[in-house]
Amino acid sequence: LAPAMEDIGNAFLNHYYTTFDQNRALLGVLYQSNSMMTFEGVQCLGQQAIVTKLTTLPFQQVVHNILTRDFQPGPTPNSIMVFVTGQFAVDGEMDKPHLFSQFFHLVPTAQSNYFVYNDIFR
Amino acid sequence: LAPAMEDIGNAFLNHYYTTFDQNRALLGVLYQSNSMMTFEGVQCLGQQAIVTKLTTLPFQQVVHNILTRDFQPGPTPNSIMVFVTGQFAVDGEMDKPHLFSQFFHLVPTAQSNYFVYNDIFR
Repeated sequence: LAPAMEDIGNAFLNHYYTTFDQNRALLGVLYQSNSMMTFEGVQCLGQQAIVTKLTTLPFQQVVHNILTRDFQPGPTPNSIMVFVTGQFAVDGEMDKPHLFSQFFHLVPTAQSNYFVYNDIFR
Repeated sequence: LAPAMEDIGNAFLNHYYTTFDQNRALLGVLYQSNSMMTFEGVQCLGQQAIVTKLTTLPFQQVVHNILTRDFQPGPTPNSIMVFVTGQFAVDGEMDKPHLFSQFFHLVPTAQSNYFVYNDIFR
């Protein structure tokens, strides 16, 4: 049985934000050479540029807290649209969380895994 | 010359929120029978269900104010991923705006127009 879209989406989100908060350099494997990330309006194309952006964000400690998760199928087979809202807090301001929202478009790989094709963070 | 992705995305957003605030029943033409909308966690499939949801929201007057707009190409030809954050205020609470974020996946029609395939609002 193929796992349900929500199961895949939830597993992705739990993995993504846990990895982001523990060692965000490891997020690179989720992207490919044609992946796009727009982070607070800054556009990055490809795994290398995305990892560089993520690992040079100006904070060390960060904690994400997901508030809402929405999933929809995309138009291509087994693709998943993932929409998240939540809060995050950084170094020395753990009592001052910021709101964020983020969109991921997950696309299956030839190896029956998923990679992030689109990523938009605000 | 094909219009740039940002031009199409901005024209769509200006039209969408202006129409929403003036007469949201007219938004139906932007959706097709396979369009999906998830509005505050409530899933609607198809133009008819989406229009019914939009026109039965529990307010009359509404004003949207866009704060950020991000666009990325999708994996299918000329498709556009649109990500918006903003504020809206409703009947009798125009001084108490709410934050929102919304995602649209715009897909070309056979008539060289666009329709909304995915729509997620929070």
